[in-house]
Amino acid sequence: MNELRGLLQNNNLKIATAGVPLLADALSDQLVPISRIDWRPAVPGSQEALNRVMADGRRDGANSLALARMLAAGALLVDVRQAKDALGLEPGTFLHAGPPLTWERASGPMRGALLGGTIFEGIASDAETAEKILSSGGIDWEPCHHRDAVGPMAGVVTPSMWMFELLDPTTGNRSWCSLNEGLGKVLRYGAYSGEVIDRLRWMREVLGPLLKLAVQRRNESPAGPIDVQAILAQMIQMGDEGHNRNRAGTLMFLRDLLPDLIESGAANSDVATSARFMGGNDHFFLNLVMPACKLQTMAARNIPGCSVVTVMARNGTDFGVQVSGTGDTWYTGPAEIPVGLFLGSYTEKDANPDIGDSAITETAGVGGFAMAAAPAIVRFIGGTVPDALAATRRMYEITVGENVSRGIPVLEFRGSPTAIDVTRVIRTGILPQINTGMAGRIAGVGQVGAGLVNPPMECFEGAIQGLAQAAPQVG
Amino acid sequence: MNELRGLLQNNNLKIATAGVPLLADALSDQLVPISRIDWRPAVPGSQEALNRVMADGRRDGANSLALARMLAAGALLVDVRQAKDALGLEPGTFLHAGPPLTWERASGPMRGALLGGTIFEGIASDAETAEKILSSGGIDWEPCHHRDAVGPMAGVVTPSMWMFELLDPTTGNRSWCSLNEGLGKVLRYGAYSGEVIDRLRWMREVLGPLLKLAVQRRNESPAGPIDVQAILAQMIQMGDEGHNRNRAGTLMFLRDLLPDLIESGAANSDVATSARFMGGNDHFFLNLVMPACKLQTMAARNIPGCSVVTVMARNGTDFGVQVSGTGDTWYTGPAEIPVGLFLGSYTEKDANPDIGDSAITETAGVGGFAMAAAPAIVRFIGGTVPDALAATRRMYEITVGENVSRGIPVLEFRGSPTAIDVTRVIRTGILPQINTGMAGRIAGVGQVGAGLVNPPMECFEGAIQGLAQAAPQVG
Repeated sequence: MNELRGLLQNNNLKIATAGVPLLADALSDQLVPISRIDWRPAVPGSQEALNRVMADGRRDGANSLALARMLAAGALLVDVRQAKDALGLEPGTFLHAGPPLTWERASGPMRGALLGGTIFEGIASDAETAEKILSSGGIDWEPCHHRDAVGPMAGVVTPSMWMFELLDPTTGNRSWCSLNEGLGKVLRYGAYSGEVIDRLRWMREVLGPLLKLAVQRRNESPAGPIDVQAILAQMIQMGDEGHNRNRAGTLMFLRDLLPDLIESGAANSDVATSARFMGGNDHFFLNLVMPACKLQTMAARNIPGCSVVTVMARNGTDFGVQVSGTGDTWYTGPAEIPVGLFLGSYTEKDANPDIGDSAITETAGVGGFAMAAAPAIVRFIGGTVPDALAATRRMYEITVGENVSRGIPVLEFRGSPTAIDVTRVIRTGILPQINTGMAGRIAGVGQVGAGLVNPPMECFEGAIQGLAQAAPQVG
Repeated sequence: MNELRGLLQNNNLKIATAGVPLLADALSDQLVPISRIDWRPAVPGSQEALNRVMADGRRDGANSLALARMLAAGALLVDVRQAKDALGLEPGTFLHAGPPLTWERASGPMRGALLGGTIFEGIASDAETAEKILSSGGIDWEPCHHRDAVGPMAGVVTPSMWMFELLDPTTGNRSWCSLNEGLGKVLRYGAYSGEVIDRLRWMREVLGPLLKLAVQRRNESPAGPIDVQAILAQMIQMGDEGHNRNRAGTLMFLRDLLPDLIESGAANSDVATSARFMGGNDHFFLNLVMPACKLQTMAARNIPGCSVVTVMARNGTDFGVQVSGTGDTWYTGPAEIPVGLFLGSYTEKDANPDIGDSAITETAGVGGFAMAAAPAIVRFIGGTVPDALAATRRMYEITVGENVSRGIPVLEFRGSPTAIDVTRVIRTGILPQINTGMAGRIAGVGQVGAGLVNPPMECFEGAIQGLAQAAPQVG
């Protein structure tokens, strides 16, 4: 180091920096003039495809349009309906999280949730019978995303489950998500014991109809539908990042809905039980944040030449990505095991690979991308406050722009990084940061922890090849 | 500066720093070894008294005990009662904020609130009659603090008003505060028009009795009384500082109380109206934070030799301070006009000097002392995020210790600065930072803004003299 001492006191020094901005920022803070050069080696094997995509004259405009559409999308809670009505989900057809998947390749928690769904729908009365039906093709299933729905963790939706229905008034698009069951032994984490099925039945018989009544009453009131995007913007001011932490969002949802629930004419004991159920689950609002985020990315779909990611989703085996410029093509790679903290005596050996459609939050610029807004959660996933700030700052490197309506307080209200650009991921090698829950790898176990995870680079390598093929032929 | 260039590269340099730690921190960050000397010139005229108090061998132990008692104090919401029952407030007797005050010296908003209270209690039917009664000694009034109660802004409490009753289970102490009326044209900001009185009547006839029913039902349930200190700890994780921002606290209070309110047997239309009233006022929970903070400082009262502040309160004319080692003696000085942002077309000319018992929040280590926990509010009072961090950091200079149960996320969960030490204020010249609302100076106007204010140094100059007189005679 000694020969470097005094280096910065040479006033004629010309400094060019490349890569992550840590060095540049440190020098800049000391009033040293620098030139920031945006250069990094591309991910190996992708350089040719990247060149072709970068040469596509449509890309800049297409990406700006995608960002503008994502920022303009709204999300109003317009109804609560059963999946058979809302999505036309036929008897014997289920939805699940992530890209398409066969029974043979399905992980423990995905199998557990499908088993539970089969029992819940009355198609089988026990797990053994359910497994025979599922493994012999007696049930059809497809990704939630194929019906513009999203499901956390296993994301299993069956026809009689109640769904939040959200409307984007800008595009007229609609998206759906089931009701959150709470934590621990719940279907979405692959548990399917009697208590799990009993809770789902109570949600079908009591909670769902009550929410429908309250939402309808609210929609007919002068206040109009609950604005999920507005609550999401507020959450970011209140320590939530919208994926692993939804405490403030859940509280604001309760504040906004409960008066109409009280006046709905439902039995007060059911209303109070429902209020306690929702209020006792800080994640209840996640199932409204997710379809709100889906509406944002739906607005950015199918723009020719656009390299913005519109879906990131995991089925517990594969991680899948969709990109605006290549429509509904899935680019997949193996789902990774999250890194974080475990409940009780569970360890990494008990954890299933990454699962769930909830990475739609990061795809829309919250969750791990807004980690700096939620320093209080870093302790629950084994990190520090500077880690949280660094995570958000890193995401600015791979996104098209910022969402000013989601100003992050500690970053002096800088907007959250929004619209992941495949070319930036390939050029920088920086992968999207995802906050997530961890399911036990054995069917029936339920949640074992929470932590951080990245998509496999294969998804983006596939996507850049797909974009290159879709780019105009040049030279 | 040129002769200083390279100074820090002399490895044998010995650096001693004094005063605020900015220089010391900057050097320390650059791995320069430093010695921090805790020396500053004392506030002029107070050196002799300060010397005497500093020589009091009881002080260190007494201050540590005061801090420990403040941290150990709890706050359970055990009842909602009318002031006549809870405080034995006799007909024709009112309470008010701050130190004692005559009608002649009372400011516009204090007079307005006393006028409104007189009309609300049916003692007068119009403002003219009320003023004659008040100015001729027809009503008795005394500070809220004289009855272990606290009142925001004018803090006027009349016998038929409902009060939250909080219990500290550690000491058995109780404290009280009225119900929050909302913002704008409200009694506590000095407004007394028909709408103000009508709202107070609805609160007396409907809201108060409902809250009492719900609180009683909650207390008899397995969950037990609502723990206001626990909610306060959570708020600090959710962007509230407990004085100018109580949004998350209000939401958690609603979540905790509404189920029992729903099951209380009260008419659903009244329950829904009350839920909307409380949910529509982000400050509703302030009136629970204040008595919780009062219980903390009550626990630290009357410790011989202790230089910790136990009350900071303003009546719109005077700012008053009480100190543990001198019991219930008031040390007063002229209340200052806050600096901040104004509603609509109001300006500083419309603002009344500082008013209200709400500075009990800062006395207990939240409010302006926890400003770093609430960067989102700095915009509403005309500041920046770095200002918020600096405000909290500065308060560590004048406090005995930190409250680890109120970890401030952005400061890596460092506990909020707690227990103001009069000797540190005198030695450093740093005054406590108070966040506050601003009342219009004309009776009847209501709120005109929100901002920051300090106590006058006279309060602490008086307190150090009082402590010096109470110190053992030496030499």
